[in-house]
Amino acid sequence: MTWFAQAASISRRPLCVSLHRVILAMLVALLALLVDPKPGSAKEPQGVRGAFLDFTQDPFFNDEKQSVRFTQDGLLVLQDGKIRDFGRHEDLKKKYGDLEIISYPEKLIIPGLIDCHVHYPQTRVVAVFGNQLLEWLTATVFPEELKFENPDYARKVASFFLDDMLHRGTTTVLSFTTTFPESVDIFFEEASKRNMRVIAGLTGIDREGFAPDAYRDTAESFYRDSKTLYQKWHGHGRNLYAVTPRFAFGCSDEMLRRAGGLYKELPGVYVNTHLSENISEVAGVKTRFPDAANYLDVYDRAGLVGPRCVFGHAIHLSESEFKRMSDSGAAIAFCPSSNMFLGSGLFKIGEAKSRRTPVRLGVGTDVGGGDNFGMLAVLKDAYKVGMLQDYRLSAFKLLYLATRGSAEALYLGDKLGTFDPGKEADFAVLDLVATPELASRNRDPQINSLDQLAFKTFGLLTLAGDRGVVATYVAGKKLYERAR
Amino acid sequence: MTWFAQAASISRRPLCVSLHRVILAMLVALLALLVDPKPGSAKEPQGVRGAFLDFTQDPFFNDEKQSVRFTQDGLLVLQDGKIRDFGRHEDLKKKYGDLEIISYPEKLIIPGLIDCHVHYPQTRVVAVFGNQLLEWLTATVFPEELKFENPDYARKVASFFLDDMLHRGTTTVLSFTTTFPESVDIFFEEASKRNMRVIAGLTGIDREGFAPDAYRDTAESFYRDSKTLYQKWHGHGRNLYAVTPRFAFGCSDEMLRRAGGLYKELPGVYVNTHLSENISEVAGVKTRFPDAANYLDVYDRAGLVGPRCVFGHAIHLSESEFKRMSDSGAAIAFCPSSNMFLGSGLFKIGEAKSRRTPVRLGVGTDVGGGDNFGMLAVLKDAYKVGMLQDYRLSAFKLLYLATRGSAEALYLGDKLGTFDPGKEADFAVLDLVATPELASRNRDPQINSLDQLAFKTFGLLTLAGDRGVVATYVAGKKLYERAR
Repeated sequence: MTWFAQAASISRRPLCVSLHRVILAMLVALLALLVDPKPGSAKEPQGVRGAFLDFTQDPFFNDEKQSVRFTQDGLLVLQDGKIRDFGRHEDLKKKYGDLEIISYPEKLIIPGLIDCHVHYPQTRVVAVFGNQLLEWLTATVFPEELKFENPDYARKVASFFLDDMLHRGTTTVLSFTTTFPESVDIFFEEASKRNMRVIAGLTGIDREGFAPDAYRDTAESFYRDSKTLYQKWHGHGRNLYAVTPRFAFGCSDEMLRRAGGLYKELPGVYVNTHLSENISEVAGVKTRFPDAANYLDVYDRAGLVGPRCVFGHAIHLSESEFKRMSDSGAAIAFCPSSNMFLGSGLFKIGEAKSRRTPVRLGVGTDVGGGDNFGMLAVLKDAYKVGMLQDYRLSAFKLLYLATRGSAEALYLGDKLGTFDPGKEADFAVLDLVATPELASRNRDPQINSLDQLAFKTFGLLTLAGDRGVVATYVAGKKLYERAR
Repeated sequence: MTWFAQAASISRRPLCVSLHRVILAMLVALLALLVDPKPGSAKEPQGVRGAFLDFTQDPFFNDEKQSVRFTQDGLLVLQDGKIRDFGRHEDLKKKYGDLEIISYPEKLIIPGLIDCHVHYPQTRVVAVFGNQLLEWLTATVFPEELKFENPDYARKVASFFLDDMLHRGTTTVLSFTTTFPESVDIFFEEASKRNMRVIAGLTGIDREGFAPDAYRDTAESFYRDSKTLYQKWHGHGRNLYAVTPRFAFGCSDEMLRRAGGLYKELPGVYVNTHLSENISEVAGVKTRFPDAANYLDVYDRAGLVGPRCVFGHAIHLSESEFKRMSDSGAAIAFCPSSNMFLGSGLFKIGEAKSRRTPVRLGVGTDVGGGDNFGMLAVLKDAYKVGMLQDYRLSAFKLLYLATRGSAEALYLGDKLGTFDPGKEADFAVLDLVATPELASRNRDPQINSLDQLAFKTFGLLTLAGDRGVVATYVAGKKLYERAR
């Protein structure tokens, strides 16, 4: 008889007071909850065995092969949604003799992918033909985002969006929302249901003529609502809050000032916005802020440049903007698919990863400006952006950018991005022979050297993209598995 | 009793001579062969009903909406591998009352996609990291192409390659081969098995130091073998031959001269080669041919510029090269995925489609320099190449390029590229809600206006690519159907 049945049978003893029965029944229910047998959420540790790839340091600034940690037959020990232990199966098997193990033979396991720049409310208007940034916002984006005043609509999209991210191996996102506070609540609620680590915030835009009146908020409401939402969500579960003025061009001076105030005021808060995406936008900003030294300086004057400030795109940066970005600890979210799809330009990866002005660099889909929902497809476009500038992004550098690199860009390097014990157990399982062409190129999924690993993972990025994702785990729980 | 049963029953009559029985049995067998019930190969016509999209004229030079022929509920009547009739189901249903019809409700049927530039022997070395053109050839391509001396290897790859093309809706390719004549025979044999219209030819390279000695051929062997292969294959079944000097940089003057001779000598023959792909290559050609006015002029002097001459890439062309290309009737194969993947540059679509220098323009995957096997994925990259130059390629223009545009670039406009009666019945069936994101964006697959058609097909190109192909027909026969 199991302990569960024993506990349950207690209630069958002849007790006189029925209250006892109620209390016992509640106790049984509570115990049942505590021993939920799903991986990760269990008190008992659980193991995942397979080939693991993560990074011990930045391969852009260190010897690449020395930066890769490839554990050919590894064991990841999960407990309470975190990584309790990690190493070679050979070394750990005795220590965890009784461990329940899920094996992924012939697969490659990587830390969960991180999308540093995405607009969940644009899920349904992705991939619209023919417009560069400013006209696209007017014709397509704002009419769609207006619909998020309706909580049912917002929930439907948020739920679809987060599931879709999981199907593509993405476990963490930094997302824009809309001007409607409910669209923020709903996003955090849906992320909480899945126990995903997400960052998001009310997305303010208040300048007349830059968005429909019904969509615009005010500096005052933005300040007030952002603060309320921060208090409600920041640090609750795995949710984190980002003060999110949409972009300098669409925000009043007062809104930027208030945003800067919130960044100063609210401990650990993020800032999320756009920077120097499009030539016309850059020209517009220059006209509007004639006293600013450059686009970044507009944010700087508002006190919006520093650690945990994340700037999407940053394509047309000057040398001094790279310098300031580097010195301040702010981060750039590089969105190659979007940058090509909207014709915005080619991000200067070489500058961002130079020794002179090294910047915290993450990557993002920028859905709906981007045309790929998955980071693996985005990395393929990153490669092309590099090649068009004669800058070569290896498979390792690419995967670094979307895992540890993005985690550090978001100041979450202590929680995400590698398999180090103590970190949160978010990871994706990849299939190196996921499609017929990939199988024809990679031949077999076995990996016997770092060169082979580089060759095969590059093939995966190039030929399979998201089709290579077999399973996705969030806080130790499998939330997605590919249909066979 | 059907005629078949009647014929069979004759043999049961009391005939005295058993020879009669044998002859009758053979007759029955012959008749059975003639009424093969498979679509297209049947003598009886067969119908395909659904929504059809093709083009009546070039949307680059005519009003776009006037160039699109959208037949919402159409009927395509197939007979003997060709299109016997095409129009609205409403209009044709009486004329073909007894027609056996395959219906594709809620799908979109387009003419078979055409790949104007691909290297079938590079199928297995696609997507190799980090090299621009010249180093990539040396390190990766030639070692692989050397394997095609082995006919078993060549057949395995050719067979895989052609099936893969069909899975992606591509029904015609203009392919490079290797210096081994058997690799040409085998390619045509495999294409013949599938009854695909293909163009290919022995691929010559003879300059010392440009390819391994074991791989190089000679001007003499190239001339002789090309001629033999032309006689064997050109116009046999649906096969067509292309004189294929690999590229000016790797071919001796003599080989180019001999190739020019073949173009003059062999009626209807094609020429297939590379032009102005990579900056270093262009510089190399300039040094090697100091007297040539430009890269194209090198081919021109060898008599290799004219109708049915197809030049891959042509990225770094001068105005006068565009002019010569336009005047001569030669064609360009635009390979956007490859051009970005190898960092070759951005093709000047606007020049090729200008009224001043209009060029016959097709598109190609350039596998293995390209990283996409399917034309739908390549069209997405074409869009990006356009946007990075502020040039907007609509879904209609993109689909035109890969169907009728490519057919006309290959001087096959009388045979392929539209649903006009008399043309060969190659087509692909697409699913406008093929993936969850596409379904979320397109909502339902119904199309009620050209604007909706543009919106939904653009979504298909952007979000689904090859995943949108449901079935592919070659000469009226279904050779591919997506697993459900």
